[in-house]
Amino acid sequence: MNDRLPEIQLLLTGNEIMSGDTIDSNSAVIAQRLAEAGLGIHRKVTLGDDAQLIADELVDMAKSADVVIVNGGLGPTIDDLTAEILANAAGVALEERQEAVTHLQQWCARRNLQLNQANLKQAMLPAGCAIIDNPIGSAVGFELNIDRCRIICTPGVPGELKAMLGPIVASIAGQTASASRRNVLRLQTFGLGESTAQQIISDAIPDWPTAVELGFRAGSPQMEIKLSINTPSATDAQEKCRQQLNELFGDHIIGEGDTTLAQRVLQLLDGRNATLCTAESCTGGLIASSLTQVPGASSGFHAGFVTYSNSIKHSVLGVSEDTLAQCGAVSEEVVREMARGALREAAADYVIAVSGIAGPSGGTAEKPVGTVWLAWGTAQDLHTRNLCWPVERTLFQTMIAAAGLDMIRRTLLGIDTEPRYFDQRQAKHTG
Amino acid sequence: MNDRLPEIQLLLTGNEIMSGDTIDSNSAVIAQRLAEAGLGIHRKVTLGDDAQLIADELVDMAKSADVVIVNGGLGPTIDDLTAEILANAAGVALEERQEAVTHLQQWCARRNLQLNQANLKQAMLPAGCAIIDNPIGSAVGFELNIDRCRIICTPGVPGELKAMLGPIVASIAGQTASASRRNVLRLQTFGLGESTAQQIISDAIPDWPTAVELGFRAGSPQMEIKLSINTPSATDAQEKCRQQLNELFGDHIIGEGDTTLAQRVLQLLDGRNATLCTAESCTGGLIASSLTQVPGASSGFHAGFVTYSNSIKHSVLGVSEDTLAQCGAVSEEVVREMARGALREAAADYVIAVSGIAGPSGGTAEKPVGTVWLAWGTAQDLHTRNLCWPVERTLFQTMIAAAGLDMIRRTLLGIDTEPRYFDQRQAKHTG
Repeated sequence: MNDRLPEIQLLLTGNEIMSGDTIDSNSAVIAQRLAEAGLGIHRKVTLGDDAQLIADELVDMAKSADVVIVNGGLGPTIDDLTAEILANAAGVALEERQEAVTHLQQWCARRNLQLNQANLKQAMLPAGCAIIDNPIGSAVGFELNIDRCRIICTPGVPGELKAMLGPIVASIAGQTASASRRNVLRLQTFGLGESTAQQIISDAIPDWPTAVELGFRAGSPQMEIKLSINTPSATDAQEKCRQQLNELFGDHIIGEGDTTLAQRVLQLLDGRNATLCTAESCTGGLIASSLTQVPGASSGFHAGFVTYSNSIKHSVLGVSEDTLAQCGAVSEEVVREMARGALREAAADYVIAVSGIAGPSGGTAEKPVGTVWLAWGTAQDLHTRNLCWPVERTLFQTMIAAAGLDMIRRTLLGIDTEPRYFDQRQAKHTG
Repeated sequence: MNDRLPEIQLLLTGNEIMSGDTIDSNSAVIAQRLAEAGLGIHRKVTLGDDAQLIADELVDMAKSADVVIVNGGLGPTIDDLTAEILANAAGVALEERQEAVTHLQQWCARRNLQLNQANLKQAMLPAGCAIIDNPIGSAVGFELNIDRCRIICTPGVPGELKAMLGPIVASIAGQTASASRRNVLRLQTFGLGESTAQQIISDAIPDWPTAVELGFRAGSPQMEIKLSINTPSATDAQEKCRQQLNELFGDHIIGEGDTTLAQRVLQLLDGRNATLCTAESCTGGLIASSLTQVPGASSGFHAGFVTYSNSIKHSVLGVSEDTLAQCGAVSEEVVREMARGALREAAADYVIAVSGIAGPSGGTAEKPVGTVWLAWGTAQDLHTRNLCWPVERTLFQTMIAAAGLDMIRRTLLGIDTEPRYFDQRQAKHTG
């Protein structure tokens, strides 16, 4: 047991990460799990599958770190080098470990697969290492010291890493008696930019308390605001900051933690025992897909219509051919008829309908790429709005799908004020 | 001009990356752009917003590297520290740069925004630095040497970084006379695992040529196989390897480069002047959304139905209430009626229909979580299949949506052999 926090470094390996072919999400998972135990990552280094470079870095890290978590290089293919490198760096031999062979045999048996030579490579481990069980994948993890530094080797496959982190983090946290109790309050927002939010806060709260660290994470579609404190005594200050943010732009706050717009909408629908349907043109099913990603979505969401062509808007949703011919598919009239058609066909309480020009082609001077009509609400109280959000196609779909969900969220909460993006993303031609 | 390749290191900064709140995709973009110019990244270090730690690392990197690309910390908020740190490390002052102020003024004017103090912080730059234009965002980039090492500072917002990388990469590539012409052939596959592919290749091609580097990238849903060569003289060997892979498991190869299943399906539909419709239950719109992410999707895809509840399967797609009651929603009969209903309502040539149990709840002993019925084909030639793919909910949706698209791809190509995953993911209860 030690009173100070261990210095933890992370070493990620893999040509696919270095070359950018794979986006690394593993280090985020490791960081989050460590944070839950009050631990932080001091430094992270990423290297390609170069045995010499990895060995040098590992030895270097071991000089100052208490723990190095190595991620990647445990796989069955020829570019997986971690076991060999660690054995060399620690000055031990590689040997076939029976526990690892047994694990591989059972893994293959469960999958009705033949154990092959490529797999067996994963049982060749540094002599004297401790084996870490992998409940999902074929590659076991392992741990060995270099001098006084613990080197913990984990697989690069995200699902396997996740399944193994619990015991690993617990064993690191067990080293220290008093992990700091960092408390992070995360607020999910939609429709605010980072600099806008920062400016509003700076202007309104010049005496922001130093004990509360303010952070932003601009994502698509949501932006996260973080209020972090390092001592329990700052809890009141943190709560006061939260209240002030609520007063400043509370209608843009979706919820806490990892809450998504789709989750919040489904939760609000559940509270009213109500259902929502969708009629999507330019977002092409993304609103429906966001909703159905949420476990239990079936209580509030029963039906979505992706009506990508004019004839389908007519035949499936009953949009009049005259309206389509006179107003065009991207028009208030059409999106309104789409919404009414979807409400009727789905027998739902609420609706989101969207029709717009996602690009890159299809824009005109009158209706440039990024133009979109949104309709939302109920049969009795249907609202429409014309926006222009001229960004790359998939980002456009992401933001418009989110805007549709956000308007239903606001409707269900009875929020009357318009979101900031209505003003910022106003279409020039409102015809 | 220099004959050897410059040693490029990457320094990523930001608490949000270190804590795992943000997944870093920027370094992948930088690596890919550098690779196109024949350049590689030697080493990458990631640190939180700790001025001392960043300064130490920067000075350390500058000792061995020719170029350090710093990413992050240029924003308007208080946790953005890069300009200050670089000024300190290089021993110069921070000063307000008129070019950067003008850039901010124009940026705000285009957006109808008021220039605020938070933004103006982005014009305080190290004295003597060269300014790098940011055509999208408010923060300009900048470059300054520490001794002989170029330190190039870039913004963390992905879209802005992308828009700035062209000139940056060109200026780095311009340093070297003979960037190696690495040629990478990337093949996209679906339905093959990494170790399976490695084993098939090792068994079938024991004399794999050393000039062709074989790499794998396991993604969801696709796996990429890479054949890399470093000299033009290896082009024939590379081409021969590709042919051998085609013979070994060519029906699992979707296409080259970044080809997605949705792109390939739309391309094949275009070639036949045919249309596809979807009837989705457990995938909840993900197949439609994957298709409509592709620019120009409207030529081959007109209509998608998300029929998440039984009553909607009946009212929208005409699935008989008797069939639903007798067979259950996850059954061959229902998925077949969904497919026929969608073909009729959409007047389309081809259809994908899916009904399954995405979990985490809803499974039974007879039909556990992960059970799914797929239907695909035409009205005259409709196929069905029962699979069991028991993975986490969103991964299940991703894989099943891909499997549906893959079966249409195979149908459109006239491939008769069954994919490997039919065998591996066979449902136990085929009732």
